Amino acid sequence: MHPDTSATALATNAATAVAPRLAALAPTERGALLRALSGVLHDHTDDLVHLADEETHLGTERLQGEVLRTRVQLQMFADIAEEGAYLDVVIDHADAKAFPVPRPDVRRMLIPLGPVAVFTASNFPFAFSVLGGDTASALAAGCPVVIKAHEGHPRLTDVTVGLAATVLPAGCLTVVHGREAGRALVTDPAIQAVGFTGSTTGGRALFDLAARRPSPIPFYGELGSLNPVVVTPAALAQRGAQLVKQYIASVTRSQGQLCTKPGLLFLPSNHDLSELLATEIAQVNSTPMLGPWISEAYRATAAELAAHPAVSTISSTLTTSDSEHTHEDSPTLLTLPAHDLRAHPELLRECFGPASIVVTYDSAEDLLATLKELPGSLTATIHGREGEDEQLSQSIWFTQRAGRFIWNDWPTGVAVTRAMHHGGPWPATTSSPHTSVGAAAINRWLRPVAYQGTPEALLPTPLQSKNPWSIPQSLK
Amino acid sequence: MHPDTSATALATNAATAVAPRLAALAPTERGALLRALSGVLHDHTDDLVHLADEETHLGTERLQGEVLRTRVQLQMFADIAEEGAYLDVVIDHADAKAFPVPRPDVRRMLIPLGPVAVFTASNFPFAFSVLGGDTASALAAGCPVVIKAHEGHPRLTDVTVGLAATVLPAGCLTVVHGREAGRALVTDPAIQAVGFTGSTTGGRALFDLAARRPSPIPFYGELGSLNPVVVTPAALAQRGAQLVKQYIASVTRSQGQLCTKPGLLFLPSNHDLSELLATEIAQVNSTPMLGPWISEAYRATAAELAAHPAVSTISSTLTTSDSEHTHEDSPTLLTLPAHDLRAHPELLRECFGPASIVVTYDSAEDLLATLKELPGSLTATIHGREGEDEQLSQSIWFTQRAGRFIWNDWPTGVAVTRAMHHGGPWPATTSSPHTSVGAAAINRWLRPVAYQGTPEALLPTPLQSKNPWSIPQSLK
Repeated sequence: MHPDTSATALATNAATAVAPRLAALAPTERGALLRALSGVLHDHTDDLVHLADEETHLGTERLQGEVLRTRVQLQMFADIAEEGAYLDVVIDHADAKAFPVPRPDVRRMLIPLGPVAVFTASNFPFAFSVLGGDTASALAAGCPVVIKAHEGHPRLTDVTVGLAATVLPAGCLTVVHGREAGRALVTDPAIQAVGFTGSTTGGRALFDLAARRPSPIPFYGELGSLNPVVVTPAALAQRGAQLVKQYIASVTRSQGQLCTKPGLLFLPSNHDLSELLATEIAQVNSTPMLGPWISEAYRATAAELAAHPAVSTISSTLTTSDSEHTHEDSPTLLTLPAHDLRAHPELLRECFGPASIVVTYDSAEDLLATLKELPGSLTATIHGREGEDEQLSQSIWFTQRAGRFIWNDWPTGVAVTRAMHHGGPWPATTSSPHTSVGAAAINRWLRPVAYQGTPEALLPTPLQSKNPWSIPQSLK
Repeated sequence: MHPDTSATALATNAATAVAPRLAALAPTERGALLRALSGVLHDHTDDLVHLADEETHLGTERLQGEVLRTRVQLQMFADIAEEGAYLDVVIDHADAKAFPVPRPDVRRMLIPLGPVAVFTASNFPFAFSVLGGDTASALAAGCPVVIKAHEGHPRLTDVTVGLAATVLPAGCLTVVHGREAGRALVTDPAIQAVGFTGSTTGGRALFDLAARRPSPIPFYGELGSLNPVVVTPAALAQRGAQLVKQYIASVTRSQGQLCTKPGLLFLPSNHDLSELLATEIAQVNSTPMLGPWISEAYRATAAELAAHPAVSTISSTLTTSDSEHTHEDSPTLLTLPAHDLRAHPELLRECFGPASIVVTYDSAEDLLATLKELPGSLTATIHGREGEDEQLSQSIWFTQRAGRFIWNDWPTGVAVTRAMHHGGPWPATTSSPHTSVGAAAINRWLRPVAYQGTPEALLPTPLQSKNPWSIPQSLK
């Protein structure tokens, strides 16, 4: 056995052993564990941020904000675990007079799937990593988590797992490192679901592994997304220069290393913003990328896109201004007409990093025809003016291609709320009904069980009529 | 192109064309379509039942009951479409003071996935076929349906589709026949999800096709299930003879051609019911099976199980009492000790038809050790007496292996209610969080979209603050 895969077996055995205990915790107990994890992050923020910055170069300000977000997520899932509405309890009382046949007493609730695997993200060392949203939602659901560490921040991963171990029962949160361990995790019979944030290629390979198991399991992957943004003629006329500045800021935020980065900006072809686009992008300071592998992939993809005969370059200094040692990369801004994008679907690929394509359209028809060809995205955005009804009717098409529609704002920055959906049709995710951000993320780790004709004493606590935990019960 | 696959392209093109119109219908309009379908069944019940009996031999009484159930399902999904709670509308109002960052207005609802495929079942020519629960829930969700006809009742299928066409817009419900057409359906880029009821082998092959698509889609398959039933020592002592009669009735109902047939009965090994089991099973009249392919599979599997060296036969007259022409088969009742079942996992397979195995256990430990080895099932049943706390503690293990737990009743016969869950871990289904019976079946055909900062005039009607359809809205 490969040493990495034997680490996987140790981790999944520990997770399997603790699973019934974690599942049986009262809501307040599970909530307390999540609040304790938030406390651990609070108490060690400075050390963790220092370590994360060494490994990811994301900067202490951004990382401190990310720790805060991660703590808010843990607290939100503590609230959710305590409230118990996520259990989706439905009670049908027996009905001897039901048509066409009498009905037994049937009560349904959601139960945890069992041990799950979480593949952490390079670009969010806190919010989508060891104690990030996947882990918080899985623990809230009652599922032990085995972390597959991202190679971009292995030391931070181990330190965070070690801190979590001071407040969690053994086996609730373990970690494995290395590609082989990750593959062994996805195929381990003990693992009941997988959460993943990363590339389309890597995610697809693991999705395929999960689907080919003798007993297949759900694989929740958040993969690549183009996040198209449309500027209407009225918005262009009203505030074109302001939109350009906001666009460049959104493309280059965190060096473009965000899954919601706008990869396509649709501008009316009569725009006169080419100079401003070039000037604004030139003012962006290069900062280090997450690591050499991200930098190399960015350069290769950006160079391929820029070299495409249908594409013109607004700004690309890939070959001159960056340094091999710090992996600093400058932004890439390209442009082409909408009809050329339709003719070259090979251009419809995510370039992870500070790159984007300005797509110019001649008419509403030209725009709509192009939007219909786009692959699935996490987000779809329109900058417009209210009252432009005809031009805006295409917004309905956007919702067919994305999981979040945004009006007069930018897709980067995702609110962590009850209503948020961070998902979308393939290749944005492997499962469009599910989200990795927001309260509904807990649904990924649960399945229903119905109890028929079961005496109160044998029912799980949330289904009991006396309802000692005061779980919301939908009665029919 | 194979002629069958060209029929698939015609059907999916029609479904794609009508999808936006079906999705945009108001709740009352979609409800009216479903009620009209129920009306069509009502008006043609006698003719349809006659045709169904010719093709399936299930008997007119059973089939009339099934039509009634199918109509009740259509009416339930009409209610669900009209109420709109299934849209799961959540509204987070903007909050400029939110911690750690201000929140935009975010509103989420579920939207239909688009055209879906439904593979109909041999054993429920109405309730799991053209106008069955899969179709009713998909249409209620706003998804056009392409039916893959089961070869067991092709004429009934075409007649029912034709009747439905008198009340549905063109493209909402179409049908294809043949294996190649079915495979083309699962891989057609227009199809966004698949519902399937059938064998583990056939379901797995189609699941694999769906997972290997360039853009994978959810495959909701209800496959094979053992449906273990435990009789406790106290229940045996109290009412052993009565339980035997009920067991035989449950095993042989509809000739055992039910996905919830109890395939394993766990009895204390000191039972004295062997003679009664043999007498009761001998009194069951043979009736025709659904078709020659079911009959052949039943005989082959039952013969293999009976020939296993660890297994003893209580009753098996496979080779003598049935006729090649009408495909009548007699029941098969086998028995073995629990420890032998643990030693021979190859016996843990569904035998579709009137076959079951009596598994004798020596102690609670012997029982529990065996239950832990069982594959996923749709149901898990205990016949016991309240107060037997120690013996009953294993009920918790049952819920780890099934989607419905039943106390002092039999798994055959599934109530169509809000709380019902008809699903379970692999191989019972391909997706344990989903159900093919009950109100929650609609969830299979939907995905969420969040709308951020969107003006009232651009919001879909269910998300508007003025809420003209009076959809339940969860406000935070």
